[in-house]
Amino acid sequence: MTSGPDFGVEAELRLVEARVHEAVRSEESLLTDIAEYVIGAGGKRIRPTVALLANKAVGGRDLSRAIEMAAALELIHSATLVHDDINDGGVTRRGRDAAYKKYGVQNALVAGDFLFVKAFAIGGRFEPDLLDLTARVCTSLAEAEIVQRRHAGDLAWTPDQYLNLVRRKTAMPISAGARIGAILGGGKPEEVEALTEYGLNLGIAFQIVDDILDVVGDPTVLGKPVGTDLREGNMTLLVLHAMNDGVERRAELTRIIRRNPRSSRSVARGLALIRGSGAVELARADAERFRARALEALDDVRPGPHRDSLARLADFVVHRKA
Amino acid sequence: MTSGPDFGVEAELRLVEARVHEAVRSEESLLTDIAEYVIGAGGKRIRPTVALLANKAVGGRDLSRAIEMAAALELIHSATLVHDDINDGGVTRRGRDAAYKKYGVQNALVAGDFLFVKAFAIGGRFEPDLLDLTARVCTSLAEAEIVQRRHAGDLAWTPDQYLNLVRRKTAMPISAGARIGAILGGGKPEEVEALTEYGLNLGIAFQIVDDILDVVGDPTVLGKPVGTDLREGNMTLLVLHAMNDGVERRAELTRIIRRNPRSSRSVARGLALIRGSGAVELARADAERFRARALEALDDVRPGPHRDSLARLADFVVHRKA
Repeated sequence: MTSGPDFGVEAELRLVEARVHEAVRSEESLLTDIAEYVIGAGGKRIRPTVALLANKAVGGRDLSRAIEMAAALELIHSATLVHDDINDGGVTRRGRDAAYKKYGVQNALVAGDFLFVKAFAIGGRFEPDLLDLTARVCTSLAEAEIVQRRHAGDLAWTPDQYLNLVRRKTAMPISAGARIGAILGGGKPEEVEALTEYGLNLGIAFQIVDDILDVVGDPTVLGKPVGTDLREGNMTLLVLHAMNDGVERRAELTRIIRRNPRSSRSVARGLALIRGSGAVELARADAERFRARALEALDDVRPGPHRDSLARLADFVVHRKA
Repeated sequence: MTSGPDFGVEAELRLVEARVHEAVRSEESLLTDIAEYVIGAGGKRIRPTVALLANKAVGGRDLSRAIEMAAALELIHSATLVHDDINDGGVTRRGRDAAYKKYGVQNALVAGDFLFVKAFAIGGRFEPDLLDLTARVCTSLAEAEIVQRRHAGDLAWTPDQYLNLVRRKTAMPISAGARIGAILGGGKPEEVEALTEYGLNLGIAFQIVDDILDVVGDPTVLGKPVGTDLREGNMTLLVLHAMNDGVERRAELTRIIRRNPRSSRSVARGLALIRGSGAVELARADAERFRARALEALDDVRPGPHRDSLARLADFVVHRKA
């Protein structure tokens, strides 16, 4: 894996990585290959970083169980990436072919199942509360996929619906990692709640920035093309903001969104309309607002270097370029 | 659900069914709808029947945990049916459209994940040994899918490879159900081993009969067309036996199997070649042999009406018409 500044958990992240690799060993080398391909693609490792920092921030000393759980959450994340790419037809991911492009849809589908199973083989060894939370994360992810697809191109979609979707598809997994980390670290109840709240707001900010980068990001830095959301009809905050910026812009965006499938040309035109509106700045302000809420939540966590790292992480998430 | 003779666990099977339905409730009604559609399609309920009978056969009184685990295994089975149908392009299942045909590939893929998660939310509450066994079942299923696909149309495939595949894709889940049922019922160690062995042999017999029905079954009784294995290039025992029945038959079957995709006409011709050979009778004899081994394994289980039911179940599995 690559990337990201150092938040003081590099050694533990390497242990998470090793645990993930150990988990996906299989007699069927193709399954291991696909799993390693997805895991090895790197990524920002936000989820395990949050879980490990939350654990340390509340005074956790023995990180072995937090490492196990962080590995389970990474496996779940990898499984959903593989299946989501199949579902969305996303052809590149982190600068490389999506797994289903490289290995075929059928093999990738099975490999995704395999990753889920390996996650639960780890997560199932934890207390029922933590297992339930992990299962709720997965249920939320599945529900979010359905909601996002059902409301693709939905011109009546509201910012509240968007935020509710983002809670389920991005914020809940990050928040659950923070919560589990804090519980396993022996955090006080108010710290556990605070870190849960931190993770939720961090996750929302993270997704808003993802949506911004899908409009104004640099594809070579992102490792994937921009405009995916618009092509899929995902009604992100940016689309919603742009729709409110002038009658003519709304009319033209409406025509583009109503069309399905959307051509590369109409996606390019839609991106230009969003970029030309005040949407990007408004969305950046939204992301900053959720970052501020995440920082505020940290007030209830004991001061220390790991709490500071969590604050820096929120900064990184909002200001990243990829 | 429908079907099958009464093996003395009808009341418990209804509780398993209720537990499965409870597990798939979701805020997203589409997920519940898809899950209910798959579960509601019925089926022979061999897996929960074996688990429940194994539990009772060793003197299990309180079936509540066996019912939970049987529900988890049914959820796993349903998840794999949904994903396998996507992968195999099977358009009908139990006389109805496959889930992905009715709800779309994307929704069905997510619904399959959802069913897996719900299974593990139940299975994860059990002792690590039982959770591990459940996870191994899922891993085996994933590995078997990969092996089956990789060796589709493989003319060097052997009966041993076939049996190894069948162990992983069909026999292991049934055997695990028997084992878990026996453990939860408080069976003696030799009874647990005996019922594991019973399940393994029952599962192999079950799959061989499935393969036979895909050649000589009545599509209206089966609820699906025949010839699926041949179309997919699955090298079942029947194909292997037919290949050994005359040089000309082998040559023509080889030509059909080498072709890919295989036309309806060539599949029909292939079926005629298999039916005209001694393959069906040889495969029936194979199934009977595994049934006999299953019965033999029962010798180490205490005598009683539930052990008798397990014997009758083996009979039913081998002599069924669908």
